[in-house]
Amino acid sequence: MIKATVYVTIKQSVLDPQGVAVQGALHSMGFGEVDSVRIGKYMELNLDTTDRESAEKRVIEMCEKLLANTVIEDYRYELEG
Amino acid sequence: MIKATVYVTIKQSVLDPQGVAVQGALHSMGFGEVDSVRIGKYMELNLDTTDRESAEKRVIEMCEKLLANTVIEDYRYELEG
Repeated sequence: MIKATVYVTIKQSVLDPQGVAVQGALHSMGFGEVDSVRIGKYMELNLDTTDRESAEKRVIEMCEKLLANTVIEDYRYELEG
Repeated sequence: MIKATVYVTIKQSVLDPQGVAVQGALHSMGFGEVDSVRIGKYMELNLDTTDRESAEKRVIEMCEKLLANTVIEDYRYELEG
């Protein structure tokens, strides 16, 4: 069993409206020191395989095809086990 | 400037319908080796402060009050800078 952790974040050049909303909420709650907020997704996938090399290729394929919208999002991943 | 990275994940005992949906989609796309998927949030906050100790307390307060729903979610954070 290999555990893949995938992080999907909005590209720096793209506006992150969810982050802007959270920053506004934090400001109005008294957290004035919050300068900027960017929000992304964090995914944990358990893969039923032991071949790390092919697992890596498959995770990249999953990211490109489904998990990330590569037009506006970046992704990175870590494999464990 | 301190950068805080916050990870919010659904507790292990709580059903993650978004994860189940993504797992189903991956299966139907031919990624049958995906055994389970859990989806969480990943947040990057830039804090306009240099006092790491108080920044940590403030980040915990933000998580407890807004960023995580501690009834069903766990959170962890890292501070940088």
